Amino acid sequence: MTAAIDALRNITTGTITTMLLKKGIRRCWVAGAMPFGKPGRRVVGPAFTLRFVPVREDLATPESRSKPISTRGAIEDMPEGCVVVADAMGVTSAGIFGDILCMRMVKRGVAALVTDGVMRDKHGVVATDLPVWCDGVAAPASVNQLTFVGWNEPIACGGCAIFPADMIVADDDGAVVIPQALVDFVAAEGAEHELLETWLVQEVEKGAKLPGLYPPNEDNKKRYEEWKKRR
Amino acid sequence: MTAAIDALRNITTGTITTMLLKKGIRRCWVAGAMPFGKPGRRVVGPAFTLRFVPVREDLATPESRSKPISTRGAIEDMPEGCVVVADAMGVTSAGIFGDILCMRMVKRGVAALVTDGVMRDKHGVVATDLPVWCDGVAAPASVNQLTFVGWNEPIACGGCAIFPADMIVADDDGAVVIPQALVDFVAAEGAEHELLETWLVQEVEKGAKLPGLYPPNEDNKKRYEEWKKRR
Amino acid sequence: MTAAIDALRNITTGTITTMLLKKGIRRCWVAGAMPFGKPGRRVVGPAFTLRFVPVREDLATPESRSKPISTRGAIEDMPEGCVVVADAMGVTSAGIFGDILCMRMVKRGVAALVTDGVMRDKHGVVATDLPVWCDGVAAPASVNQLTFVGWNEPIACGGCAIFPADMIVADDDGAVVIPQALVDFVAAEGAEHELLETWLVQEVEKGAKLPGLYPPNEDNKKRYEEWKKRR
Amino acid sequence: MTAAIDALRNITTGTITTMLLKKGIRRCWVAGAMPFGKPGRRVVGPAFTLRFVPVREDLATPESRSKPISTRGAIEDMPEGCVVVADAMGVTSAGIFGDILCMRMVKRGVAALVTDGVMRDKHGVVATDLPVWCDGVAAPASVNQLTFVGWNEPIACGGCAIFPADMIVADDDGAVVIPQALVDFVAAEGAEHELLETWLVQEVEKGAKLPGLYPPNEDNKKRYEEWKKRR
Amino acid sequence: MTAAIDALRNITTGTITTMLLKKGIRRCWVAGAMPFGKPGRRVVGPAFTLRFVPVREDLATPESRSKPISTRGAIEDMPEGCVVVADAMGVTSAGIFGDILCMRMVKRGVAALVTDGVMRDKHGVVATDLPVWCDGVAAPASVNQLTFVGWNEPIACGGCAIFPADMIVADDDGAVVIPQALVDFVAAEGAEHELLETWLVQEVEKGAKLPGLYPPNEDNKKRYEEWKKRR
Amino acid sequence: MTAAIDALRNITTGTITTMLLKKGIRRCWVAGAMPFGKPGRRVVGPAFTLRFVPVREDLATPESRSKPISTRGAIEDMPEGCVVVADAMGVTSAGIFGDILCMRMVKRGVAALVTDGVMRDKHGVVATDLPVWCDGVAAPASVNQLTFVGWNEPIACGGCAIFPADMIVADDDGAVVIPQALVDFVAAEGAEHELLETWLVQEVEKGAKLPGLYPPNEDNKKRYEEWKKRR
Repeated sequence: MTAAIDALRNITTGTITTMLLKKGIRRCWVAGAMPFGKPGRRVVGPAFTLRFVPVREDLATPESRSKPISTRGAIEDMPEGCVVVADAMGVTSAGIFGDILCMRMVKRGVAALVTDGVMRDKHGVVATDLPVWCDGVAAPASVNQLTFVGWNEPIACGGCAIFPADMIVADDDGAVVIPQALVDFVAAEGAEHELLETWLVQEVEKGAKLPGLYPPNEDNKKRYEEWKKRR
Repeated sequence: MTAAIDALRNITTGTITTMLLKKGIRRCWVAGAMPFGKPGRRVVGPAFTLRFVPVREDLATPESRSKPISTRGAIEDMPEGCVVVADAMGVTSAGIFGDILCMRMVKRGVAALVTDGVMRDKHGVVATDLPVWCDGVAAPASVNQLTFVGWNEPIACGGCAIFPADMIVADDDGAVVIPQALVDFVAAEGAEHELLETWLVQEVEKGAKLPGLYPPNEDNKKRYEEWKKRR
Repeated sequence: MTAAIDALRNITTGTITTMLLKKGIRRCWVAGAMPFGKPGRRVVGPAFTLRFVPVREDLATPESRSKPISTRGAIEDMPEGCVVVADAMGVTSAGIFGDILCMRMVKRGVAALVTDGVMRDKHGVVATDLPVWCDGVAAPASVNQLTFVGWNEPIACGGCAIFPADMIVADDDGAVVIPQALVDFVAAEGAEHELLETWLVQEVEKGAKLPGLYPPNEDNKKRYEEWKKRR
Repeated sequence: MTAAIDALRNITTGTITTMLLKKGIRRCWVAGAMPFGKPGRRVVGPAFTLRFVPVREDLATPESRSKPISTRGAIEDMPEGCVVVADAMGVTSAGIFGDILCMRMVKRGVAALVTDGVMRDKHGVVATDLPVWCDGVAAPASVNQLTFVGWNEPIACGGCAIFPADMIVADDDGAVVIPQALVDFVAAEGAEHELLETWLVQEVEKGAKLPGLYPPNEDNKKRYEEWKKRR
Repeated sequence: MTAAIDALRNITTGTITTMLLKKGIRRCWVAGAMPFGKPGRRVVGPAFTLRFVPVREDLATPESRSKPISTRGAIEDMPEGCVVVADAMGVTSAGIFGDILCMRMVKRGVAALVTDGVMRDKHGVVATDLPVWCDGVAAPASVNQLTFVGWNEPIACGGCAIFPADMIVADDDGAVVIPQALVDFVAAEGAEHELLETWLVQEVEKGAKLPGLYPPNEDNKKRYEEWKKRR
Repeated sequence: MTAAIDALRNITTGTITTMLLKKGIRRCWVAGAMPFGKPGRRVVGPAFTLRFVPVREDLATPESRSKPISTRGAIEDMPEGCVVVADAMGVTSAGIFGDILCMRMVKRGVAALVTDGVMRDKHGVVATDLPVWCDGVAAPASVNQLTFVGWNEPIACGGCAIFPADMIVADDDGAVVIPQALVDFVAAEGAEHELLETWLVQEVEKGAKLPGLYPPNEDNKKRYEEWKKRR
């Protein structure tokens, strides 16, 4: 797995979606999860999932935060290097985490947080340096709209199914999920695809026309293979 | 519980929402779940929950239906008299159940099915006589859009949190959820409220003006109490 | 005005929108307002407007119903023959009125109720026989989601601006608003247009092709004028 | 093709979507297109497409209806037995056709009209007896919101791509599109699948449990094959 | 009031929403209103409300701008230090104000503009230095989509009810509304809460685990009180 | 046309929408198309249109890119100085173009790309320096969600109808379309309007009140004309 993770660090989320389409998988990009505060980062790691349902006023109160099934309990269970993926049902009017919880996630070595919901306390969260992909910010806390119900269960996030231990990769084009069984395939094919794209960019820079080039016809495939050998 | 269920059979979903508001609960009406095919029914029963996440093409295939965690397995676990509540994430382009599964639910004594999603095979489902509250119909099966992941977990449905064993009541105004701890309160207060409404309708029919009547001022409260005694 | 109202009783909402388009008015059809319970009705009357804003939990409580600015007060101010138009901001998860208030509106001679929101207590409302155009039904009362703030103000409803005393016409194609200054124009031109459509239907029934017929070219205009004289 | 069309008349849209999923096709059900006025019908026929873009006020006027690229011209080009599929971009506030144009389509032998938009003049359209699948009704004419731009082009409709001569099947579960190249496959496999469902319904009626039955395990497959021989 | 306003300048919108939840108020954050152009600002002031309804083509013309009930008239009525809150019904395709009107608001001492709609003329508006919270930018003027109907009325804005003289606070997490009667409560409790968060951040920085800390158990409450005394 | 294009370079999109409203045109601003990566640019050029429909899994595959009707073919047909306008049906979960195709558009002298969809490979696209107006970014390629069907046809884009050779202008307030027949009118009237706004800004800076100034009454019109002469 470590080798695959290392390979994935050099493969864009765009390329990963193209590799997954070869396997018939279209639902792999987490809608709504965009870089928060600090663009330009890339993360790779296995998913640690969190699940929210809508608020019920008798349960989702400030007091609920000290119950055993709470986001606090979940955070203390997060392994180093994981990518936390939170199913906030796309709710954008209550922030699932603020600075204090993000700071604790950094202490625990969490690699990143990905959600189809939003954060709260933008300045504080950005200051913790935790890499976050989300759909914006809101002032109210999660208990305003959401009830936390568990962790490391299958979840929905941004139109995707996410299972614990699926591989998550995120960059400035958003976050994608790779089914565990396809990680090695994507890592291997993706590296090759990145190489092809490098060659294509050079060809287009030289003035090449697109038809026959991208995707390459037989002649161009041969030229690409020769270029690859000469590198 | 049986006594409360019996009392709830004579209380409308509208009255239930008003009683719950007295306890600060606004999120109790399942958006999207409307009577399917046969209006005019009323059901009451404890929730048996089902949970779907989005389709992932490598998992949600026709073959998945024979796996242990499948809607088939869930159905065989449903107790008599329960109201099945299915979290379909509001997806309206794939039907969660068709005639065969609904027929089996009838055989198992399921009281009703409530979902924020849709059904498929409208004619067949209506023919089974299973009372259904849903958001319409679609031709594709659940595997077209959804992956089934479990049962008797907390779920989201139509903007509400639903926990297993919450009480569900449904009529032509839709479906509502009563937190387990509030069932007796709602049953008792709701019965009284229905009585008040009966009196109010009579008063308005006689030509009474609304201010001071609904809600009643002191004078009208007295008149109502007298009317109640005379009944 | 009475003559215009009488003329409008024979003009469809479809024809009215076409006449208003001649004056450059496209925003005249109330999105979401459809016949509730009993199709096949037609109503015409001047608008009496109601306005809601979102709930604020400290104000929109069951107690608020007895305050001076309440829907109860508004109802007692409704003149006979008016069409009540309620701006519910398109909220579909709380019913603005139930049976008791609708019954009182009938007693006051209200011609119809039009809203971009929903009703509650479907059976009771239909039983009052008040003609209603709305977007469906919900169990919760208005105070669950909405705060009533006033009447006979300009409002938004279903994407239209509605001013008090604008003319409202509603049938099975929905509800339309005619600006007060254009009522006579619409009544006169609309009657003529209905006649043309009658002739067109006869022509198409005889097998006439559409190009040149609808809209009519010079030749067909002449034939139509002759038909009109012969009637 | 005629044989396939005949076979498809006995295959539900639900079964068709399941057959298409075997070929990896999930996008085949036209969202928003539901039976209009008269449920219970079934139609099968090749697609004849219409395309609208948004209104531009200088072009989409009542006068535009007499221009060569108009819905009138398109109608006169419709072959007998076709299913007209209109891309209305999901616009629900202007009706694409009323009674006159629908009456003419009936005269030309059009089998049905399917759209992700709405109709106008509900009574008139239903009276023509043209089978229609759409998303409701609105009073304004198409020129209020839409500009007609052409026919027999590839279109979008309800989330599907529709190409001229694709096969359309519609029933009470909505409308589906079968790519031309897959019509024979769907017709053959679908007939077999309908037979299996008939047997399954009988088994469940007798009290059979679902796991192992639906989908059938080896034992049940054998029992089904024997049942098929005995029929 | 001045003392409360001063106190609120040091309390985040996040903390304010948490204090309001103690009073049962969940609807207090204005959805869609985000900092425009210049992040990092904080404003506090009483609400001055503006209300728009949809365009009606005979009224919302460039000429309408010189009528007495116009945004121009409203601006000349704005008191120094107020926060203007405009109900644009969430319309994002027409900008409610451009540079000229914003410049005049600055001249009148307006503290900020908050809306669920959008601005136009981004460069000009940012150059006026008026603090603005809105949902983006659009080229068309308000008359393209909206009709202005009045000021200092109760309004809807971003899912909240706003009454004139409610207190508005806005920062990088958006804008919140505090009911007038709760301003002193929020100012007092909020200041204490900010202090607690300061202590919590320090504890987490030192490596404290979350359960028992946030919210604090008895032991940690004591430690916090001691820390407070030592400051 | 060249003179008009030159004049339009000094007229904001805001002013253009106001000029078009004088001609009754409200639908001219492309919703969703915002500057991508590099704000502060202005472009003017005739529209070259692209059209997508939803994906159909048997057609929209990586292989489809080498077919004659492909985005590659369309790009090789783009004339120098055109503004490419792509109808992506508002789909925001698949990017229509990445760096390689944008680079080729730059080579062909394309002035800009405008779409109601999104891009992919944000870094690569920004590096090509092609001016782009779009609705954000997504990792998946167009074939994940869309099928390309043709170019230089009438299209829908962001709620507008766009015809080939309409004039497109884009700046930081978004992108607008000018019908070909109105280009000279907009260029002439727009230049005058920009001058008036310059004067208005000066007046407001000096402390002038808005009523009577904007729009100017007779007195202020005279003052403006004098100012114009003195320039």
